[in-house]
Amino acid sequence: MKKILLSSLLIIQGLMLKAQNEDFTQYVDPFIGTQEMGHVFPGACAPFGIVQLSPETDSVQFFHEGKYNKEVYRYCAGYQYTDLSIVGFAHTHFSGTGHSDLGDFLVMPTVGKVQHNPGTIDDTSKGYRSMFRKETEAAEPGYYTVELDDYKIKAELTATQRVGFHRYTFPKSDAAHIILDLTHGIYNYDGKVLWSTIRVENDTLVTGYRITRGWARTNYQYFAMSFSKPIKSYGCSNNEEVKYNGFWRKFDQTDNFPEMAGKALTANFDFDTEEGEEIKIKFALSAVSTDGALKNLQAEVPHFDFDRTRSEVKQMWNKELSRIKVEADAEKKTAFYTSMYHSFIHPSEYMDVDGQYRGLDHNIHQADGFTNYTIFSLWDTYRAQHPLLTLIQPKRSSDMVNSMLAHYEQSVHNILPIWSHYGNENWCMIGYHAVPVIADAYVNGIKGFDAEKALEACLSSANFDSYEGIGEYKKYGYVPHETSHYGASITLEYAYDDYTIAQLAKAMGKESVTKEYMERSEYWRNLFDAHTGYVRPKTKAGDHLPNFDPLDTHGAGFIEGNSWNYSLYVPQNVGGLINEMGGKERFAQHLDSLFTMHIPDEYFEHTEDITREGIMGGYVHGNEPSHHVAYMYNWAGKPWKTAERIHEIMRTKYLNKPDGLCGNDDCGQMSAWYIFSSMGFYPVCPGSGEYVIGSPSVDEAVLQLENGKQFTIRAKNVSSKNIYIKSVTLNGQPLNRTFIKHSDIVEGGELIFHMSSRPNKKWGLEGDAYPYSFTPVKE
Amino acid sequence: MKKILLSSLLIIQGLMLKAQNEDFTQYVDPFIGTQEMGHVFPGACAPFGIVQLSPETDSVQFFHEGKYNKEVYRYCAGYQYTDLSIVGFAHTHFSGTGHSDLGDFLVMPTVGKVQHNPGTIDDTSKGYRSMFRKETEAAEPGYYTVELDDYKIKAELTATQRVGFHRYTFPKSDAAHIILDLTHGIYNYDGKVLWSTIRVENDTLVTGYRITRGWARTNYQYFAMSFSKPIKSYGCSNNEEVKYNGFWRKFDQTDNFPEMAGKALTANFDFDTEEGEEIKIKFALSAVSTDGALKNLQAEVPHFDFDRTRSEVKQMWNKELSRIKVEADAEKKTAFYTSMYHSFIHPSEYMDVDGQYRGLDHNIHQADGFTNYTIFSLWDTYRAQHPLLTLIQPKRSSDMVNSMLAHYEQSVHNILPIWSHYGNENWCMIGYHAVPVIADAYVNGIKGFDAEKALEACLSSANFDSYEGIGEYKKYGYVPHETSHYGASITLEYAYDDYTIAQLAKAMGKESVTKEYMERSEYWRNLFDAHTGYVRPKTKAGDHLPNFDPLDTHGAGFIEGNSWNYSLYVPQNVGGLINEMGGKERFAQHLDSLFTMHIPDEYFEHTEDITREGIMGGYVHGNEPSHHVAYMYNWAGKPWKTAERIHEIMRTKYLNKPDGLCGNDDCGQMSAWYIFSSMGFYPVCPGSGEYVIGSPSVDEAVLQLENGKQFTIRAKNVSSKNIYIKSVTLNGQPLNRTFIKHSDIVEGGELIFHMSSRPNKKWGLEGDAYPYSFTPVKE
Repeated sequence: MKKILLSSLLIIQGLMLKAQNEDFTQYVDPFIGTQEMGHVFPGACAPFGIVQLSPETDSVQFFHEGKYNKEVYRYCAGYQYTDLSIVGFAHTHFSGTGHSDLGDFLVMPTVGKVQHNPGTIDDTSKGYRSMFRKETEAAEPGYYTVELDDYKIKAELTATQRVGFHRYTFPKSDAAHIILDLTHGIYNYDGKVLWSTIRVENDTLVTGYRITRGWARTNYQYFAMSFSKPIKSYGCSNNEEVKYNGFWRKFDQTDNFPEMAGKALTANFDFDTEEGEEIKIKFALSAVSTDGALKNLQAEVPHFDFDRTRSEVKQMWNKELSRIKVEADAEKKTAFYTSMYHSFIHPSEYMDVDGQYRGLDHNIHQADGFTNYTIFSLWDTYRAQHPLLTLIQPKRSSDMVNSMLAHYEQSVHNILPIWSHYGNENWCMIGYHAVPVIADAYVNGIKGFDAEKALEACLSSANFDSYEGIGEYKKYGYVPHETSHYGASITLEYAYDDYTIAQLAKAMGKESVTKEYMERSEYWRNLFDAHTGYVRPKTKAGDHLPNFDPLDTHGAGFIEGNSWNYSLYVPQNVGGLINEMGGKERFAQHLDSLFTMHIPDEYFEHTEDITREGIMGGYVHGNEPSHHVAYMYNWAGKPWKTAERIHEIMRTKYLNKPDGLCGNDDCGQMSAWYIFSSMGFYPVCPGSGEYVIGSPSVDEAVLQLENGKQFTIRAKNVSSKNIYIKSVTLNGQPLNRTFIKHSDIVEGGELIFHMSSRPNKKWGLEGDAYPYSFTPVKE
Repeated sequence: MKKILLSSLLIIQGLMLKAQNEDFTQYVDPFIGTQEMGHVFPGACAPFGIVQLSPETDSVQFFHEGKYNKEVYRYCAGYQYTDLSIVGFAHTHFSGTGHSDLGDFLVMPTVGKVQHNPGTIDDTSKGYRSMFRKETEAAEPGYYTVELDDYKIKAELTATQRVGFHRYTFPKSDAAHIILDLTHGIYNYDGKVLWSTIRVENDTLVTGYRITRGWARTNYQYFAMSFSKPIKSYGCSNNEEVKYNGFWRKFDQTDNFPEMAGKALTANFDFDTEEGEEIKIKFALSAVSTDGALKNLQAEVPHFDFDRTRSEVKQMWNKELSRIKVEADAEKKTAFYTSMYHSFIHPSEYMDVDGQYRGLDHNIHQADGFTNYTIFSLWDTYRAQHPLLTLIQPKRSSDMVNSMLAHYEQSVHNILPIWSHYGNENWCMIGYHAVPVIADAYVNGIKGFDAEKALEACLSSANFDSYEGIGEYKKYGYVPHETSHYGASITLEYAYDDYTIAQLAKAMGKESVTKEYMERSEYWRNLFDAHTGYVRPKTKAGDHLPNFDPLDTHGAGFIEGNSWNYSLYVPQNVGGLINEMGGKERFAQHLDSLFTMHIPDEYFEHTEDITREGIMGGYVHGNEPSHHVAYMYNWAGKPWKTAERIHEIMRTKYLNKPDGLCGNDDCGQMSAWYIFSSMGFYPVCPGSGEYVIGSPSVDEAVLQLENGKQFTIRAKNVSSKNIYIKSVTLNGQPLNRTFIKHSDIVEGGELIFHMSSRPNKKWGLEGDAYPYSFTPVKE
């Protein structure tokens, strides 16, 4: 027995070794999604790192003539692929968000006259920015390079978790400069920088920080910046009107004064360079202090060997990407691994190397026994991104739960995060979707966190009565329209979240909590209008709103969606919904019309997130509320239609080109959808412990699980035509139901799909074909 | 032997016990100096505490119609005795400064309509401020009380080192409020608050902080505020234009929203009160974090017993005041102990109870093995305030040296503090006067700091060439007028500081450093003009400036003074100066004319620090540069004239009334002058190890030294007429010289002055009558 176990382990290790020897980063194209809607960045980062060192191609302001500047939306990640000039390289970026922030610490190498303003996109000569040619630009996980034509400088970037590493190859010059602009930012506006400092500690080390008031209401970002070559001279401007300066007026911080402070600092560090001389900069971040940044710097990059760091980061990426080894054609491999890459950027490790981080209360906390993460875009990511991590990154998943529990403990509202970043709650979107993440983790056996505290946190979050109608939801059974014009969508999501509380409580053996929250999970029924067959907002008096238009997206009860789409948001009881909607056949027709209807242009006018590219009929893949919808055909007894829709979405909404993402990647959610779907299943209802089968697109996917086991998925004969499931076996046994359990996967084994060009309308209908649905579905 | 020692110890302990049983606080009148020029505050504080909880009688702004508002100067400590309304009670105040800052965290109890603005001094009904009657106001060390007539509230304040404790006795009301105004400040201006937050942690605990840009360029002040009674409701306004608010617009922080932030926050906390009901507030400070403030709160006041804290703080004061036990008439005792009180406010303990503090680099540091202090008004306090602490507070003196060395280590300029407060260097005034403080401590045997590092820090400070002409001073032997219009005064003070470096180096056996700095200590000669007999500014070319007027105070080479006064600033070589000035007789005449001359009004027009009240002829006691001058008659062989001047100054410049201080108390310097002088000696040249004898005014002063020894000074027959020294004995031996050594005192013993109404012109002339003067004085 022992021997067998040992040899199994050796085989697994061997496989993992093999997997790790393969260079998976070659399949990643960081430029995918960098044009238009994807909002991802092409720069360098380590897996789940807090540094995202990436080029900024414009410095768009949030306000234009006092009003919201729509143009800023395109620069959520600081970059648009079609731009031809670069402002500089900043150290923090969100990946794929639809609202933004960050862009901290812009560094730009220049030659010639010192300029402290960025110039304009039309005329780079007016500032420090530079033109570049697209053909000089290249990127791979953990590396980015471009040639800055205005200065004949080659720029290269790499990054560890906490350190951005720059290598600039200069021409010969007696006026080479590194510009550090603390005024630059994403979603920037005059006044965003509350305070900033720069300290020249010695001729190769500069420290400083800035505190900004952006989407993060109070964001503390500290840095330590280490040069490979001594600074010859330096200068600084402060582009603000200083009313009072104490006795500091004694000093002029313009030239070589080592202690600069203000609200609008831009500094230059000057060098003499030989032709081809490299100036390297290590730029470490911390949310704690400049001391913390320095510690991070010394721990992660204790040398100036750029190529070594680049290679180490590539190895880190390969380790993460090798967690799923797929066989597929080149195009699909690129789509798959680029999605993996995008899924492994956020949440990001948010603590210094010694475990210190700045909490929600702005105090410094110690992460004891876990790694602290931030950037929880939970309304997006609870759907598939977190379930993906729970499946293939259980250690990180556990750490993320602990991070959310720490947030809860620091919260003066006593709640889990809604949308949090850098020790801030930014309150974006709706629901209390940390709850399904925690429930999904617990139900799926993730260990390492305090379950009792987790349940307490979930219950506290679900009973924060003053937040977005929770009190009314409990009182009326729905969030009335008077309380919120998004009340119907909020009600639907609360009901789902409550289902997951019930699942968590059930798994913990808490009967009364289970019962209470199962009841709350049915509150979606309180807004379902049997007459029209849609979910509709209600007033406190209990009346549905008049003048109902199920396509209306303008705050008619729903956020980032309309009734047509949102009425399908009952993932916790698809069977019950189908029954309300008139049974299987009518429901299938309803879905058909969703995917094929024509939507008039006017419905797109006022939404940033939903565009023509992201839709199929009235189905919106570019935004999240419908991500589960294509899988609902299964409940209607038509899994082949799920296969058709899934393949169409994968084929048309995930293209290997800069504008290939049809919507914001949303911190990995869009990408996680692709990863699951291309393997043939999807977490329609996280917290249920089950995945719903769709239709795989890759030939093979081998999950290298952290418990040392493997789960292999094969799609025999799959092709662009063979998208239908003829039959399935799980560990050799026929599987004639449309779901598999999480436990099926983590125990290891083999899931074989036999694919065909024609639907097998009998597959998937047998027995317990309707996953976790406690309501028998009517024909 | 053992027995004797033991009995001696018992006697000493008995004496100390007796001393401690006497209530010295009864002799302190905190209102002395609170009117006009003293700039001290009447509120509650513990000895050397970081909390100074005191009433603000106006909220004057630094700017009026865009220009400096002279009126702000009167409110350096937030209070003017003649005002009849109180804005509120703030937690931080400088004692006696001539430039200001702080006034953090104004708390005001009110009844009725909630008002978030302070109102005006003319009409209290327009805001939360209140009228009060002077007869309801009372203060003693660690306690202040007043009745707020607009609200019928009795206010009482006490404070430990880190916690302000408020007790408000309310009338019956269903609208009782505690206002917390984070916009209030001293030397306040629109824009001073960079950021502030308020968190209602629960119904009795509120935390928060503010970061201000004032005299301290970046001041982090955190608080924890604990109520004795649960808050019924609360509200907050933010009086600024908020351009961008992220998703925080979801919330209205006006009412009961527990997480407020902004640049102009004022909050109200509401209560129902019964007639005579007390609401108590413990308000802890920290420069580290709100966690730090909470730790301080719990450590220092773990209860709500106001009277207990008041009594404990009184005990702390008695412990400190009992270090010198004087016998004198009531008037002199009040002047003496009020001076002691003022000398024991700053420097202030600047660290949390666990030793953490925010350093000059804004990082959090741990004070290892010492207590960290801040508020070093060194240009003032190196003269007598620090020497006083070195003499009677050697432990604190050692801690202060360590605090200054920590500052040096954190300084990016590698220098000791100039004028530092709250982890900031504010660069006020001239010289590098941490050097004489350190030298004086070392020469006088203060232990507990690293002497090698101390010397290194002194040398580094004396060679920070880019600071205020140090480079030129080394090159030309003086600071040329082109470099600084205060160059002559700077040169004189550098030369003195350099003498103290030489003394430090000498005591450490560093011969070459001693030699070098003794040479620098003679640089005063480079500006002495034998032709006029004054020190005069010079250009780089070596020419004295033309149009010389020794009375000119308008930047003609001198800061806060003129040539007449500053020419006497050679404390390190008075003999040398006298010789340059023509010998003893001429010098004595010169001093006589200084004390008796008439100064035209025009010389007072442009100086805030020097007023008619502070002068005697041309001698300016209200400012520091002349504090040693009255003692210089000794060198001229006329100690009886020193006695006359000293007694006149004590009698006319230190009056026991609110406007009794003739100039800014300057963090204890004015008071320390009085303490030394009334005991009969003064540190004319700190660093020399010697004190110069003047003429005592108290009957007896017993110094309870920390080494367990006592030094007793008796002035036999002293009276308002008997001001002259007939003879002196030290430990029974006749003393016919005009100085005593520090070592004479710390070894314990008895100094007996025999006083007379007529000068004994033969006393003090014998032998080594000219202390530490290495230049024999000409007749």
